[in-house]
Amino acid sequence: MKVIIDVMSGDNAPLELVKGAVMAKENLGVDIVAVGNEEIIRKIASEQSLNIDSIEIVNTDVVIDMEDDAVSVVRAKKDSSMGIGLQMLSRGEGDAFVSAGNTGALLTGATLIVRRIKGIKRAAIATVLPLQTPTLLIDSGANIEVDEKILEQFAVMGSVYMEKIYGIDTARVGLLNNGTESTKGTALYKNANQLLGASADINFVGNVEAKEVPFGACDVLVCDGFTGNVLLKSIEGMSKFFMRTLKNVFYENLFTKLSALMLKGKIGGIKKQFDASEHGGAPFLGIAKPVIKAHGSSDARAVMNAVRQAVSYAKTGIIDNISECALRIKEREDTKE
Amino acid sequence: MKVIIDVMSGDNAPLELVKGAVMAKENLGVDIVAVGNEEIIRKIASEQSLNIDSIEIVNTDVVIDMEDDAVSVVRAKKDSSMGIGLQMLSRGEGDAFVSAGNTGALLTGATLIVRRIKGIKRAAIATVLPLQTPTLLIDSGANIEVDEKILEQFAVMGSVYMEKIYGIDTARVGLLNNGTESTKGTALYKNANQLLGASADINFVGNVEAKEVPFGACDVLVCDGFTGNVLLKSIEGMSKFFMRTLKNVFYENLFTKLSALMLKGKIGGIKKQFDASEHGGAPFLGIAKPVIKAHGSSDARAVMNAVRQAVSYAKTGIIDNISECALRIKEREDTKE
Repeated sequence: MKVIIDVMSGDNAPLELVKGAVMAKENLGVDIVAVGNEEIIRKIASEQSLNIDSIEIVNTDVVIDMEDDAVSVVRAKKDSSMGIGLQMLSRGEGDAFVSAGNTGALLTGATLIVRRIKGIKRAAIATVLPLQTPTLLIDSGANIEVDEKILEQFAVMGSVYMEKIYGIDTARVGLLNNGTESTKGTALYKNANQLLGASADINFVGNVEAKEVPFGACDVLVCDGFTGNVLLKSIEGMSKFFMRTLKNVFYENLFTKLSALMLKGKIGGIKKQFDASEHGGAPFLGIAKPVIKAHGSSDARAVMNAVRQAVSYAKTGIIDNISECALRIKEREDTKE
Repeated sequence: MKVIIDVMSGDNAPLELVKGAVMAKENLGVDIVAVGNEEIIRKIASEQSLNIDSIEIVNTDVVIDMEDDAVSVVRAKKDSSMGIGLQMLSRGEGDAFVSAGNTGALLTGATLIVRRIKGIKRAAIATVLPLQTPTLLIDSGANIEVDEKILEQFAVMGSVYMEKIYGIDTARVGLLNNGTESTKGTALYKNANQLLGASADINFVGNVEAKEVPFGACDVLVCDGFTGNVLLKSIEGMSKFFMRTLKNVFYENLFTKLSALMLKGKIGGIKKQFDASEHGGAPFLGIAKPVIKAHGSSDARAVMNAVRQAVSYAKTGIIDNISECALRIKEREDTKE
């Protein structure tokens, strides 16, 4: 198993990415290819006393940053760490690719260089929400405008992911909506409710309201990327808001500080639950090979967890499974016509 | 000032509604009309030792429940407590109307019986989010499909509300979106960004991501009712989830229980911040007279706060102001054509 890492992209690149690459190599027993500026990588390794002898380095000076256009990865910046990594994955010079960089560019590159699974209309960004039970949000931001057939594919891909990675046999699929009744929502959501309800490939539990999402209302939450992005960022913002409110409460006076001391481990537990670095990254479901988007603010630990996730993804045969489902849906549609 | 209350609708009706009506009468110095089953109202008053002598009662046996169709308020159930209350408001037999009942029916009734302000295309449900600074979410669920001109009117109505009720002079209007760049979002949101940016009637601060909403990114947050409902319920769900997580932490062992005791007042403060009953209800902006939707789970205190809000709404001339803005927008549009 060989994982390619773009060590130049992300808020904490290259330092935390290089550290994460070494940590992954040492702890996960996988081969690592680090794509980035070799001089910088070697300098970091020397300064941090990291052993990078067993890590393969592919040198490039070009980096895609957050301001770059998404298509730059296949045009002006195809020789960037992200572009080269995706090309290597496409050619089979690695089993999975991890990047903490520009999401739009990574998705565009994955779609145009690595390509989609045959029969899949759109690749989606899937994010596991770390709430009462793990809930896979699909799509969390890649596809702003979709149709109900695309949402059905998201439901199928999400179900396969939750089965293979979380061992959930018949994942409960919910459709995000503004009410539980099947007639709720826009025309798209009404149609999607019908289509998901009739689908033989998933276990549809109906519409799910956002307020039930934290309490494990479903295992796979399907929606368009616009609404999904609002939900994801709202959960992110509210978690941050609460932790800050709590911190202010604790630091108010001696008694509250004492309480904080007694509760330290517990509050740490809550913080850990909401901490992106504990949960690896977001897979691009629908791409023909494993591409994992690590959180932009990933530290070394988060990078290692994203690599761990990439390895599971590559090992469990998710892509073959999605491919079979896509064919089955296609056949049924052809029969109907 | 006379406020009409539908005392038969809501999860805790009629008990908490009757108690809330009496509480409002005693504390706010306004006249109250209670619409509902007179026998039940008198029985509750006697059992709870409430003085209802100075409250006007309008008797009806009919109640709209959560399963009723929205149009029932003007058809089969026009003699319901909600229907009668709206008709009284329309005829000028009260200055404002408060109901904790079926939101769809209340909006339909308000629109068809009380009518919209001239020039306003759609009435919206506006909800104040109790976060770092009060943020008015408009629309939070009434209008599932809208166009950019409707969103512009939401922005104007929301700005007037925040000025009149919260004293915010030039309210910062944000457009909910999946990114801050002006080119983000669906076609609707791209167009809305242009239109809001060019509008002379508002102080537009651009697109706002959901993660910034808790931290006071804007005073008025504009979006369609589908996305707004997802955001509102996500904030509601996350608040509940966090309070529950915290409670579990506190009740784990002796030390944590002791800490909980020391922090009691502080945690109560957090709880209070997120408690719907502290914040009154949601006004239907765009309706020609004040209609306030109290939270479905309102207790007596929440009902009183909704009445307080109704009084402010009626007193501050919000409706005249919105009316003037609507005319101004209309004139500008006519000039352009």
